[in-house]
Amino acid sequence: MSMYLKTKVSNRDLFDAALGKQKCDKVIKGGRIVNVTSGEILEANVAIKGERIALVGDIEKTIGSQTEIIDATKLYLCPGFMDAHVHVESSFLLPEEYARVVVRAGTTSVFFDPHEIAYVLGMKGIQFMLDRGRNSCIKMFGHITPKLPHLISGGLETYGAEFSESNVIEMLDQESIVSLGEQTFSKFLRSDRFFNIINRAKSKNVSVEGSAHSLIGEKLNAFISAGIQSDHEATSKLEAEERLRLGIRLMIREGSTERDLKKTIKSLTESHMDSRYVCFCTDDKTVEDLQKEGHIDHCIRKSIKLGLAPMQAYQIASLNAAQYYGLEKEIGSIAPGKISDIVFVESLEECNVRHVMTNGDLVVIDGKINLERKSYHVPDWTLNTIYLKKKLTPENFKIKTRKRDGKALCRVIKTTPYENLTDPIEEWLVVRDGEILPNPETDVLMFSTVERHGKTDGPNIGVGFIKGFGMRRGAIGISVAHDTHNICVLGTNSNDMAAVVNEIARIGGGLAAALEGEIIGSLSLDVAGLISSLPANELTNRLTTIHQKVRHMLGIEIHSPFVAISFHSSSGIPKIKITDKGLVDTVRGEIICVEVDSSG
Amino acid sequence: MSMYLKTKVSNRDLFDAALGKQKCDKVIKGGRIVNVTSGEILEANVAIKGERIALVGDIEKTIGSQTEIIDATKLYLCPGFMDAHVHVESSFLLPEEYARVVVRAGTTSVFFDPHEIAYVLGMKGIQFMLDRGRNSCIKMFGHITPKLPHLISGGLETYGAEFSESNVIEMLDQESIVSLGEQTFSKFLRSDRFFNIINRAKSKNVSVEGSAHSLIGEKLNAFISAGIQSDHEATSKLEAEERLRLGIRLMIREGSTERDLKKTIKSLTESHMDSRYVCFCTDDKTVEDLQKEGHIDHCIRKSIKLGLAPMQAYQIASLNAAQYYGLEKEIGSIAPGKISDIVFVESLEECNVRHVMTNGDLVVIDGKINLERKSYHVPDWTLNTIYLKKKLTPENFKIKTRKRDGKALCRVIKTTPYENLTDPIEEWLVVRDGEILPNPETDVLMFSTVERHGKTDGPNIGVGFIKGFGMRRGAIGISVAHDTHNICVLGTNSNDMAAVVNEIARIGGGLAAALEGEIIGSLSLDVAGLISSLPANELTNRLTTIHQKVRHMLGIEIHSPFVAISFHSSSGIPKIKITDKGLVDTVRGEIICVEVDSSG
Repeated sequence: MSMYLKTKVSNRDLFDAALGKQKCDKVIKGGRIVNVTSGEILEANVAIKGERIALVGDIEKTIGSQTEIIDATKLYLCPGFMDAHVHVESSFLLPEEYARVVVRAGTTSVFFDPHEIAYVLGMKGIQFMLDRGRNSCIKMFGHITPKLPHLISGGLETYGAEFSESNVIEMLDQESIVSLGEQTFSKFLRSDRFFNIINRAKSKNVSVEGSAHSLIGEKLNAFISAGIQSDHEATSKLEAEERLRLGIRLMIREGSTERDLKKTIKSLTESHMDSRYVCFCTDDKTVEDLQKEGHIDHCIRKSIKLGLAPMQAYQIASLNAAQYYGLEKEIGSIAPGKISDIVFVESLEECNVRHVMTNGDLVVIDGKINLERKSYHVPDWTLNTIYLKKKLTPENFKIKTRKRDGKALCRVIKTTPYENLTDPIEEWLVVRDGEILPNPETDVLMFSTVERHGKTDGPNIGVGFIKGFGMRRGAIGISVAHDTHNICVLGTNSNDMAAVVNEIARIGGGLAAALEGEIIGSLSLDVAGLISSLPANELTNRLTTIHQKVRHMLGIEIHSPFVAISFHSSSGIPKIKITDKGLVDTVRGEIICVEVDSSG
Repeated sequence: MSMYLKTKVSNRDLFDAALGKQKCDKVIKGGRIVNVTSGEILEANVAIKGERIALVGDIEKTIGSQTEIIDATKLYLCPGFMDAHVHVESSFLLPEEYARVVVRAGTTSVFFDPHEIAYVLGMKGIQFMLDRGRNSCIKMFGHITPKLPHLISGGLETYGAEFSESNVIEMLDQESIVSLGEQTFSKFLRSDRFFNIINRAKSKNVSVEGSAHSLIGEKLNAFISAGIQSDHEATSKLEAEERLRLGIRLMIREGSTERDLKKTIKSLTESHMDSRYVCFCTDDKTVEDLQKEGHIDHCIRKSIKLGLAPMQAYQIASLNAAQYYGLEKEIGSIAPGKISDIVFVESLEECNVRHVMTNGDLVVIDGKINLERKSYHVPDWTLNTIYLKKKLTPENFKIKTRKRDGKALCRVIKTTPYENLTDPIEEWLVVRDGEILPNPETDVLMFSTVERHGKTDGPNIGVGFIKGFGMRRGAIGISVAHDTHNICVLGTNSNDMAAVVNEIARIGGGLAAALEGEIIGSLSLDVAGLISSLPANELTNRLTTIHQKVRHMLGIEIHSPFVAISFHSSSGIPKIKITDKGLVDTVRGEIICVEVDSSG
């Protein structure tokens, strides 16, 4: 049983409290409960003893002279919202600070996989995130990734850390671990290591996350037969439907750049499938988007706007995730014996969060957090993790060919806004002085991944062409580059690309933008080059400023461009990406040449 | 993880099999799947490797020269049915034989509490039942009762065995135990023993069964707050609704004498509540009724006839129970990776079971069981468990008063057919020679419970009056008497009552009927006085014969009269019962006098 489910109040005290033999600490009067187990909206009062609900119904006997009475007139009481699959690092926040942001949106539990930090700091990094999660004001249940790299069989990119099978098995014994981290379809699913780990996971009744990018038919069947129990990568109604039919959880994702909800919710709103195997998740969502748009509350609002019955939306946001992770006896509904995680909202459709209770305490009142912000100690070993031995120059980013001049037919990565999946296309590009040039006029830019873990001497720098971002000038880069978290940089010219990477190294990791050789903005992500130790508001302000500059000065219109580029270094996402080793056909698992025919 | 979920086929083999790299053992072609996770009926083929499903969909690649092809044209494929709460002893069958009967009705998993045998043979008896369950052709997951007596605080009746807290804690480590046995609302829920056991159960993610007879409001809240997670005693729509609203599982019961489905299903068919927290169970159902009427298939048929959507009925019969017991990753749906427990039915509404597959093997083909019946070894220590030191006489059953003649105002137990709950009423009865007489003319009969465990010298014999059975002549009795399993006997006169009890003692436990001092029929329940080691068909034939005799010769019209009387010895069921210690007010937990005013 997870430590999050251990409470000071005992079942014995709750028994007495329900009968009025001990008085309750708090009662909530006058609200309407979103009853996710019966599927009804009901007027009912709630009596709370310690961290748990003692009684739902007639509370008169439970009230004593010390009992706090919380007025919920005109408010709906919903079970706390849950994000079923998230990488907290992608918010750029430390876990405690992340919790302070999402709890205001009604989130009381997240199921998070700290595998991003693992690529930089290994198991020690994962433990750091789990430990910080335990200090937060919400429940942060962990996933443990069975190996690095988690998505593919390896060899296609360079990363900073490793860990052994026995490290993972030990982690499965930790109380805050509820799942094995996400896996993709690969030979690793047949390996002894996976086999041993999954058997241990099963014996501990731990879930197994999947990342089934584009999988259908026999491959999807094989993937599930290997033991995978969820997928958060469905991007179409058809994919969503197939996952529900094959008995795994459909985690509908609505993150910063991956926005699948509009299409995948159709499995419910149009096909009217049973919704009990559906959860909401964000996967990757920045602090800026969390603060401006919300978290799971946003998924609820958007689903209802798209035609989902409100009851289903609230069930998906609470009970469904609790059921999947085997926690429904403790959380996920407002009922006697359950931990008192309650969201008070004004309108079911608007899902406007007024108050939030976690573990029986009101931590958000009238939209404002009611907990003092602690200063977070960040240990030195998590800082200064960019190991570039020398300054890079524009030469490092030039794509050379044997020709002196003319044109070269090149492979170009074709991207689509708000999707991570890419397609290979071919374009003729101008060659000048033996260098193949990008062409911002036709939106063919350069994209590069620079190894930053100090594992290669050069360092390794992969460079290629990419289309779909519409940037007109300059370059942007970030030391968040899924999944190995090298430095990725998007540019119209090699000069600005070098400037960006050097700036990121100078600030100890983070993000930067350059125009005509000058840095126009940068922001340190001091912890592992992934996370900022700043407070959320300050971080959001700085990000917003940089985003405005990038939009106005570099002409990039896409939302969250730094996050968007961070997914194009991953050799685990179909179909074509650039790692520090070069252009990668991620479907076949091979390094390929930028030039289609480099023979002449 | 339960041993029932360990299979020879590995996830690795299934992965290969789904891709066609290993050929499957069997494929099922042409059927329509009742897809309980998506809520759809879909045409789809199924490929099976070993005990598990490898693929659902296009099976062509999975077929090799050795692959058996099962034709399911015009048939529906449903996930195996589950009985969420049952006492197998009440069937009168040994577990292996029970499994052979219910598997023909499509049942592939039962969740059973062998607490009946515990009252006679203690923990050794429970272990006997669990071990026999493991030898059966279905999955028999066990409950372990936290103490004897399980329903009440004790002192109101005599039983044969005890066991300690540590015995129970040890049992929780057994792989086949998935739940703590049922508890009623009592002070035991506040005891250190329950508290320790429930904390251990929670840490092992084991469920906790409840028996919430008539509980509503604050008492039901307290009961649930103490840690209870299900109830199978709701008898009305209102009770059913309250259970679903308070977040515990509603187990809709349809047994031999307790038939709650018609009323409780209205929570779904009329109130349209969410059905995911609903399961089916039988609690107590005899071999005769199982064979004539069916098992969970009967619940499905009856629910659909009463207006339930077929999809909901099949979900309730499968996935819902699997979810409740935390087993849905292994059983409860037809999907890749799951254990292949499949019921082939001809019509969803009729739920007429044609074939049944368990663990990938067809064990029922065209309605006939495809497994040879083994002869079951029954150890000596389970036999001859009726310890009556002497023959009883009619005097033992006479209800004496101080008056010589006239009338006496007496407390009478008022029963209702097909319910176990009773009400106290008062009737004036004739007194002759200092004996208060029953009056079959007005349906006031005598009811007695005789201690049979050898724990009392007399032995203890409780006698009183009961109304509602409509028996005209003679007496019937049985050594199944919930929950302590003394001998209970219903009679129109003390002479026949003594004859019945003496016959039951002679045959080493069982049931018997007498008329005018002669035994008109008896049947040995040789194992613990509860279970017969006979094959099911023979047992059913003998029971049917006795039931016919009893109906014709004694004039009792009620269905399963032996089972019906067996519930009126329980001090754990409201409101008034007769134990070996006498008439009991089971609400107040007190022995009371038969005569309202015995002062004169």
